Amino acid sequence: TALHFRVKDEVGSLKKVLDLIEKDGFNMSDIHSRPMRSSGSSAEYEFDVQFAESYSAEKLDLLQGQLSSLCSLVKVYGTRDEDIPWFPKKISDLDKFAAKTLDAGAELESDHPGFKDAAYRQRRCDIVDIAKKYKHGDRIPRISYTEDEIKTWGVCYSHLRNLYSSHACRQMNEVFPLLEKYCGYNEKNIPQLEDISTFLKQATGFSLRPVQGLLSPRDFLNGLAFRVFHSTQYIRHHSKPLYTPEPDCVHELMGHVPLFANPSFAEFSQEIGLASLGATDEEIEELATVYWFTVEFGLCKEVTQDGKETVKAFGAGLLSSFGELEYCLSDKPSLKPFEPAVAAKTKYPITEYQPVYFVADSFESAKLKVREFSRTKQSRPFQVMYNPYTQSVEVLNTKQKILDKMRATNIQAEFLRETLASLI
Amino acid sequence: TALHFRVKDEVGSLKKVLDLIEKDGFNMSDIHSRPMRSSGSSAEYEFDVQFAESYSAEKLDLLQGQLSSLCSLVKVYGTRDEDIPWFPKKISDLDKFAAKTLDAGAELESDHPGFKDAAYRQRRCDIVDIAKKYKHGDRIPRISYTEDEIKTWGVCYSHLRNLYSSHACRQMNEVFPLLEKYCGYNEKNIPQLEDISTFLKQATGFSLRPVQGLLSPRDFLNGLAFRVFHSTQYIRHHSKPLYTPEPDCVHELMGHVPLFANPSFAEFSQEIGLASLGATDEEIEELATVYWFTVEFGLCKEVTQDGKETVKAFGAGLLSSFGELEYCLSDKPSLKPFEPAVAAKTKYPITEYQPVYFVADSFESAKLKVREFSRTKQSRPFQVMYNPYTQSVEVLNTKQKILDKMRATNIQAEFLRETLASLI
Amino acid sequence: TALHFRVKDEVGSLKKVLDLIEKDGFNMSDIHSRPMRSSGSSAEYEFDVQFAESYSAEKLDLLQGQLSSLCSLVKVYGTRDEDIPWFPKKISDLDKFAAKTLDAGAELESDHPGFKDAAYRQRRCDIVDIAKKYKHGDRIPRISYTEDEIKTWGVCYSHLRNLYSSHACRQMNEVFPLLEKYCGYNEKNIPQLEDISTFLKQATGFSLRPVQGLLSPRDFLNGLAFRVFHSTQYIRHHSKPLYTPEPDCVHELMGHVPLFANPSFAEFSQEIGLASLGATDEEIEELATVYWFTVEFGLCKEVTQDGKETVKAFGAGLLSSFGELEYCLSDKPSLKPFEPAVAAKTKYPITEYQPVYFVADSFESAKLKVREFSRTKQSRPFQVMYNPYTQSVEVLNTKQKILDKMRATNIQAEFLRETLASLI
Amino acid sequence: TALHFRVKDEVGSLKKVLDLIEKDGFNMSDIHSRPMRSSGSSAEYEFDVQFAESYSAEKLDLLQGQLSSLCSLVKVYGTRDEDIPWFPKKISDLDKFAAKTLDAGAELESDHPGFKDAAYRQRRCDIVDIAKKYKHGDRIPRISYTEDEIKTWGVCYSHLRNLYSSHACRQMNEVFPLLEKYCGYNEKNIPQLEDISTFLKQATGFSLRPVQGLLSPRDFLNGLAFRVFHSTQYIRHHSKPLYTPEPDCVHELMGHVPLFANPSFAEFSQEIGLASLGATDEEIEELATVYWFTVEFGLCKEVTQDGKETVKAFGAGLLSSFGELEYCLSDKPSLKPFEPAVAAKTKYPITEYQPVYFVADSFESAKLKVREFSRTKQSRPFQVMYNPYTQSVEVLNTKQKILDKMRATNIQAEFLRETLASLI
Repeated sequence: TALHFRVKDEVGSLKKVLDLIEKDGFNMSDIHSRPMRSSGSSAEYEFDVQFAESYSAEKLDLLQGQLSSLCSLVKVYGTRDEDIPWFPKKISDLDKFAAKTLDAGAELESDHPGFKDAAYRQRRCDIVDIAKKYKHGDRIPRISYTEDEIKTWGVCYSHLRNLYSSHACRQMNEVFPLLEKYCGYNEKNIPQLEDISTFLKQATGFSLRPVQGLLSPRDFLNGLAFRVFHSTQYIRHHSKPLYTPEPDCVHELMGHVPLFANPSFAEFSQEIGLASLGATDEEIEELATVYWFTVEFGLCKEVTQDGKETVKAFGAGLLSSFGELEYCLSDKPSLKPFEPAVAAKTKYPITEYQPVYFVADSFESAKLKVREFSRTKQSRPFQVMYNPYTQSVEVLNTKQKILDKMRATNIQAEFLRETLASLI
Repeated sequence: TALHFRVKDEVGSLKKVLDLIEKDGFNMSDIHSRPMRSSGSSAEYEFDVQFAESYSAEKLDLLQGQLSSLCSLVKVYGTRDEDIPWFPKKISDLDKFAAKTLDAGAELESDHPGFKDAAYRQRRCDIVDIAKKYKHGDRIPRISYTEDEIKTWGVCYSHLRNLYSSHACRQMNEVFPLLEKYCGYNEKNIPQLEDISTFLKQATGFSLRPVQGLLSPRDFLNGLAFRVFHSTQYIRHHSKPLYTPEPDCVHELMGHVPLFANPSFAEFSQEIGLASLGATDEEIEELATVYWFTVEFGLCKEVTQDGKETVKAFGAGLLSSFGELEYCLSDKPSLKPFEPAVAAKTKYPITEYQPVYFVADSFESAKLKVREFSRTKQSRPFQVMYNPYTQSVEVLNTKQKILDKMRATNIQAEFLRETLASLI
Repeated sequence: TALHFRVKDEVGSLKKVLDLIEKDGFNMSDIHSRPMRSSGSSAEYEFDVQFAESYSAEKLDLLQGQLSSLCSLVKVYGTRDEDIPWFPKKISDLDKFAAKTLDAGAELESDHPGFKDAAYRQRRCDIVDIAKKYKHGDRIPRISYTEDEIKTWGVCYSHLRNLYSSHACRQMNEVFPLLEKYCGYNEKNIPQLEDISTFLKQATGFSLRPVQGLLSPRDFLNGLAFRVFHSTQYIRHHSKPLYTPEPDCVHELMGHVPLFANPSFAEFSQEIGLASLGATDEEIEELATVYWFTVEFGLCKEVTQDGKETVKAFGAGLLSSFGELEYCLSDKPSLKPFEPAVAAKTKYPITEYQPVYFVADSFESAKLKVREFSRTKQSRPFQVMYNPYTQSVEVLNTKQKILDKMRATNIQAEFLRETLASLI
Repeated sequence: TALHFRVKDEVGSLKKVLDLIEKDGFNMSDIHSRPMRSSGSSAEYEFDVQFAESYSAEKLDLLQGQLSSLCSLVKVYGTRDEDIPWFPKKISDLDKFAAKTLDAGAELESDHPGFKDAAYRQRRCDIVDIAKKYKHGDRIPRISYTEDEIKTWGVCYSHLRNLYSSHACRQMNEVFPLLEKYCGYNEKNIPQLEDISTFLKQATGFSLRPVQGLLSPRDFLNGLAFRVFHSTQYIRHHSKPLYTPEPDCVHELMGHVPLFANPSFAEFSQEIGLASLGATDEEIEELATVYWFTVEFGLCKEVTQDGKETVKAFGAGLLSSFGELEYCLSDKPSLKPFEPAVAAKTKYPITEYQPVYFVADSFESAKLKVREFSRTKQSRPFQVMYNPYTQSVEVLNTKQKILDKMRATNIQAEFLRETLASLI
């Protein structure tokens, strides 16, 4: 917790304020002041006081009131530490999300096609049990999918697969054959999460975690910060193979998985995740909307072989939906250039085709835009950096930490230069 | 494979040489030339020719002979690709080492204290079986150590533990209490590799792999490139608790494990590993010697609380040996400043205390020295970089790859600057 | 001169092409090839050939014709060296511009207010004689301005001075008092170029050179690359003190000089100058238009003390024109955000108020936009960098030069980091 | 002025100290505190207090005494501003040195060969008068040297010139022919300072200033910070052409001038100059000694054409002394590797050949070593950077200044990368 106040530049003025602070038993760990540009008559000084301990909001409010009479400005500076939402610091912290699904995968809504199918409901229970027990570091248990399930998968697979070469972005078309080769993607087989996770780890360090059902947007986005994608393992009801009211393995494996094997897309996805750590509820809503308009429903520019600029789909909601994949590239919806600040404030329907899509220039530019959006628009008083060695998040809240990383960056820059020089 | 030759700068001179090359069916993928400083009379040009395919050494030697008459200099430039030893590119490639131990842990030398103990030998067989079956990504099976084994461990533990505060480096003393707290290190318990590996992953990304016995120096060092330490799981014979002719879990867990939890030491160890990838046999021997004089028997400078400079032990061979730990800091051995080029050429005895130790300024400086040693003294025609996301090694052999990484570095530098600016 | 061609990847294909090249007596200094992504059937290779000497366009065209039958693509790669317009490499090269004014200051147009005033015309001859004789490194001779001249200056001065606080950008208002204090700016004195030049050198390294009259846009912009501003020393005719059809010392000293004392503006101006070096005639026209819409008629955003965004004038044509300075901030003209690529293509009237103004976010952002515009849109096959020590331009046309500068940049980055660390 | 003290971390402890400070009327501008690692019992806090005004040493000493009873440590932190010796901030500040020569060139010592030659003494007076009147920005007046003077020069020239190819460093031999071509260096002509200065400005930005005689080491070194070399214009007495007890134009033009045209040597020389700004008297003495063992009497490593390592002379005292140039490369003197910290403490004779020489690896490495020496061993509480545009020195004493320069460095790094990428 920190306090910010402004007093006149007179001998003793600070002392009076400090008297007040100390009288109430506050223990200061750090005081810093700076002169203000004197806009007119007498100069003023701004002070930042850092407290060594946490105090109750009541106690702080009382102090703020008392200081008001002595200072031209008093405010609680930055966010109070205790107000920053908890967030996972290391990858095994994600184990805590398992029990918190908003909408457990085993409890179906009444309008779900499988609502009245007792066998289907039992099957869901069996499958989500895996997710319930899963801990970081475990192999993901394999599932013997039934013939019905495989048939449902096959219908979706053949419908979607044909559209990719014309409608999906280049990166999707580069990766998909590899999934067919290495992960058992084909019409007659539902790929296993464990095989996919192993493949993704080698490609970009992304990994899958089985999940019981819908996570809260905060938990779900937080997972992306660790390059972890929470994936369902069950499949939609066989009665309506081309429809599902919720994510299922068709949506995850056809829509999401392929692009997580692309390094730039992986960086972009992680960037949204990093932005979500410690965000306020309002900011989570905005980031979830940015996620919606990119990872779920994003379009991107692409240059064709003959040099023309065109637009393709990369969002998982599009790549896993036969109908919307065609619709989104038609002349019906309206397209806007991807700007996180704009996308974050845009309303969207959940149960019908999107009226508006955002078009990214590239995954790399999208990533830099999300980072800039996060850095300048979010309220958390720190930046974070991911340490891929320890699979943990470092909070950049001291100057020394940043200076140390700058040193590493400088060493890296010179190593790269020397390496390049030896090739030239 | 590449060819380097030097011809006079005359119209047609290149053509004659190319005629010769083509006549023999060589397919060139890249030709590059540069003018030489004319040291006297007529100017000459140097050419580098890259071939698209691999050719036999015989065929290349023949070509070299033919060109000699036309050129003032002809040589095979750089290393031939086929001559670069195979090396693991991704962490799961380490699975291939399992079957290749030089000295299987189950086959004891005749001078081994347990040579005639049939029960001990059977126990070893049972334990190394775990290593034989282990694959990357598996949990490491736990072992129920016997009372005898635990007693052996306990003797070593109590002897060594007491010496650390006075003889071991600061980093050792910082980490050891954490191992006691989180990994079950104590006199009455042999810690489990799985628990330690989990702990190390969170600390620095290092992990342990069970190993049957001695790996070749190349394989062992290659593992370090991936922050993987191959560790035995069995323990020395109870008849001589303070002696072992080979690595056992006392040596690994007391000597090696603690420092792998230190980020700077982890970087240093990995740097030796990265240097070993694709090294020649002679270079491997040099790097193994550097490893010997640091990771196994290294000393380092340290500043005491009252500002004096002192020397402490960090090598595992010292930290796991009651006698040598005291000896190495006595006035008997001679000490030299750590210089990789010097250490690499120094002979050492295996079965007695070292006559010479090398003293590092710090783990960070030691790392930079190893990198410089590798960059300037090794013959491989490329540098490598580790990608901790994918746990794989990237070979920096094209300019574009390096330019892409430079861009990332520049973006990182500016991100850090902005983050620092917001804290000031 | 360089040649670029594309041949099939077959043994002997390069040889046939080289035969052709050599037959005609071309002397190659550098050959480089790279494989192309095979877009379909058989692979192709691209070759870049650098010639050691210059050849006539005819000879090159002939070669291009002959090669066409063997290659799928042949073109003269980059600009031919002899086609790149000459440009000054060092500051003393600017001495060559003195004799080349388009419109000598001593020869008046018939519509010039002083056209029929023989004494005024003689005075102009005397003053431009200084510019004619001036060499780099000379002090600029002082002029004893007549009472009439001073009166003309005074009228302009008092009219303009009053408007600056409300209409001119912040940087103008910061610098102007310094000019009054150190350079003799006041209603009753025409400041001397020598005093101003000395002041600017200390502020930003900009310097003034007396000029006879209008330089060609190329020469004028080239001067800015060296932070040299070519300035007239004579003044408009006393009969119309608030009007001049050409630059005179009121325009230069009131309009241009103050902002050259601002480091960011100096960098921005120099950037246009650097872009003009070796530019084609079309590119010079575009850069002159960018100059027109910024240095002459630019507006910029500004945040007022109470935090509101407003627009102010920084162009010299505005700051030296009583009428247009008021007009440009009224609601009559239309404003556009400054984008070099857009501004460069915009038509403008010379003899009346501008219908469109471009608004820069800041001088720094404007500089970066001009650099990016130059780097991506201009045809010259090199970038340039200014060496302020030697006041000369370095052409970055070899990899080694750039790698050397990268090393200097890396050393600088680490020096700054260390310096910052010592302050924290 | 700043104060540093250490108090226990208790509520009210800071207040007591502040009471004391304020009672005496000190006006604090900045207070900063940090917790100390508690080495044992109770935690302590360190405080840095910056004062807004300057106070007398007496007043500060009194305060220090009073605080001692309350604090476990009190000291005046860094150097008191008023104690930092004055130093030139801009190049025209060097005008102030002109009147301060230790040993005016017109006043000869009694052992000077020209002591009794009235005409010689008058000639000296006439020549140093130029230096007395010289101001920054002036052209250096030319001198018509007499036949006697030219003959003296010629004797030295022919003796020395012959030795350079075998004894002087490569850079000397590269530059000397250019001086012969462009600056009138030959046996029958004494070159003019103005011509040399113009040449050096184009080569490295170094310039010459005529000087009356010996400057103090501080003033002389300070000049180098601006790439200004103070040079005598008169010549030794004709009676002893190969001897001079003081610098004369033979020493300057033969010994010093050539290497100032080498960019790396220019950087190195400037680095010593920058280190001397604001140095204490003791530090100036050390830097003058470093200067003595490099710029005056330095040797450097060099690789011969056949790849062998050799040693050559680069110091001006050697290059202008027939005898010592041969001696220094003989086996008589002892050679040490150049380490500023060692050289700075080494005693040397002035009137005889040096018993010890220091050998630099390269000018670039010597520069980095001087910078590191200055950064870590000198007491001034700031670093400096030279701005070659404004020819002024920037004191890096605020974090914001450094962050701004870091931003420029990052932009530069990316510009260079992009430029390099376009060449590859």
